[in-house]
Amino acid sequence: MKTKYITKTKELEGLPKASDFKIVEEDIDENLTDGEVLTEAVCISVDPFIRVHPIPPGIPVIGFQVGKVLASKNEKYLKGNLVMHLGGWKTICKVADELCWYRVDNVISSKDITKGVGVVGMPGIAAYFGFLDFCQPKEGETVMVNGCAGAVGSFVGQIAKIKGCKVVGCCGSDEKVAFAKSLGFDEVFNYKTEKSWPEAIKRCAPNGIDCFFDNVGGQLASDIINQMNTRGRIACCGFISTYNSKTPMQALCDTVQPAMVSKQLRMEGFEINEDRFKPRYPEGVKQMSQWFKEGKIKVRETVTEGFENTPKAFIGMLSGDNIGKAVVRVN
Amino acid sequence: MKTKYITKTKELEGLPKASDFKIVEEDIDENLTDGEVLTEAVCISVDPFIRVHPIPPGIPVIGFQVGKVLASKNEKYLKGNLVMHLGGWKTICKVADELCWYRVDNVISSKDITKGVGVVGMPGIAAYFGFLDFCQPKEGETVMVNGCAGAVGSFVGQIAKIKGCKVVGCCGSDEKVAFAKSLGFDEVFNYKTEKSWPEAIKRCAPNGIDCFFDNVGGQLASDIINQMNTRGRIACCGFISTYNSKTPMQALCDTVQPAMVSKQLRMEGFEINEDRFKPRYPEGVKQMSQWFKEGKIKVRETVTEGFENTPKAFIGMLSGDNIGKAVVRVN
Repeated sequence: MKTKYITKTKELEGLPKASDFKIVEEDIDENLTDGEVLTEAVCISVDPFIRVHPIPPGIPVIGFQVGKVLASKNEKYLKGNLVMHLGGWKTICKVADELCWYRVDNVISSKDITKGVGVVGMPGIAAYFGFLDFCQPKEGETVMVNGCAGAVGSFVGQIAKIKGCKVVGCCGSDEKVAFAKSLGFDEVFNYKTEKSWPEAIKRCAPNGIDCFFDNVGGQLASDIINQMNTRGRIACCGFISTYNSKTPMQALCDTVQPAMVSKQLRMEGFEINEDRFKPRYPEGVKQMSQWFKEGKIKVRETVTEGFENTPKAFIGMLSGDNIGKAVVRVN
Repeated sequence: MKTKYITKTKELEGLPKASDFKIVEEDIDENLTDGEVLTEAVCISVDPFIRVHPIPPGIPVIGFQVGKVLASKNEKYLKGNLVMHLGGWKTICKVADELCWYRVDNVISSKDITKGVGVVGMPGIAAYFGFLDFCQPKEGETVMVNGCAGAVGSFVGQIAKIKGCKVVGCCGSDEKVAFAKSLGFDEVFNYKTEKSWPEAIKRCAPNGIDCFFDNVGGQLASDIINQMNTRGRIACCGFISTYNSKTPMQALCDTVQPAMVSKQLRMEGFEINEDRFKPRYPEGVKQMSQWFKEGKIKVRETVTEGFENTPKAFIGMLSGDNIGKAVVRVN
């Protein structure tokens, strides 16, 4: 049996280019060991974290996909099931149990499967656990979300509305502003066209910010932190403002410590693949799928067709082209 | 009855100068209302937070002092008692109940009263609650403290040793390094003479940092945060690196978000005068005084004689002249 995968041709520097990736075709041994499943990719999730993942050139780029089980030696995933797994940018995958996250055909209908990559996938549960665990929103509080038209940000804003909060978002185009407003965000600004970020924040959140879900980092995050209320909570989910810089782990911006001390803030970083969340995935997946079915969480997706176009979808997402969840439909 | 107080002559800018302060003498009405005490200053605590406190020119500079009760309409504080209170830079004070923190003559002997301003005063309980509540140190973990030769920092390091941690400090002179080592710090570096802060941190904490008690903020704090271990805890107590800058609430340094996310760190800011700590002051004061009496916490102080020299002591402390607690003996 043949499989195809996409790998980096070299370490990424700055915004990735198409030539940074290549497709490799190879034989795959269909024999499974205990716990493994053999899957065929249905759709591939294109997410910002991939940009800073240290996976080296030569092996498949990491990432989530929904795969259809072709054969199984794992009693949790039977032939024909759809599985959310971390098999990466690869068509036919042999996946060990620890890289299989959960079944999705029992929580979302097959017609919505690309949407499922977002709402019951990593972005959905990252929004669910990250926002509720670390921001601990209370009814009537003001919540700020940056990257608010992306997958995680758009879910956080909608969860915040469900919880009775006032929701302020920011994002990078007027089209994205309109999209976020259509989801129910109370106030949204375009950070690319505002003259002063502190003034835009003050205009949208005149009573200050109680909860901040940070997908972006950088100076905009510092400006938001400086307008938080006493005992505010910050969930650090990502730092996409620096992902394409030459040294993506570094960037200069205003120091956060003065606000942390004088407002007695709490800031917590998380990654949704941590062990502390794993036993709770079913709770998050169930709640997100229920809100989706009830229409309380709307999902917009930017779908790219064809496995070979995965790098293009990824580069577009990093360039801010997508609205909502960026996903590649393979089959 | 006459009292003297010291007030700012104008808003402070940069490192304060002697001419930024003046002494005012005035009459004080000795009649007390319910809850008030009349005190005579014994010693005045000179602390970094005063630099960024927004108290305006014209009224006494804010600050802690130990005052001897001359008269009382408060059953908690009787004539002759020594009270830790927030009466500021003033000789005879009429102090309302809410500005009286607690008695100190029942937890520290009168010969140690200047030391008491530190060890059972605000710095002692800030170190106690800030470190234990927010860093949650476990035996065998590595703790990093900056400003480690100051009052709060030197207490945090000693509490960390009591808790069985490896303790790494940094401070601004070789004399301070020697002092911190004499307290039991395992490794200490002089940030003013190291060529590379990241390398100095790596040399002193080759296995990474689990708990970081931050008195300083700025680039050094970012460098420390970048060498923290997964699920590390950061207590933000102060940001003295920026106190004397023209805009003390702002400074550029490396953004902390990448480390917060990828290491899943928790950072929490606090001020020891928050309501959440007040009911617990007796616990902190009792434990700190006990450790002091047992010799487990050593106190070094830099004593300045004379009320009129309070600004000089304050400016010296902000310039890094003091080792240990800066205090002014009035009577």
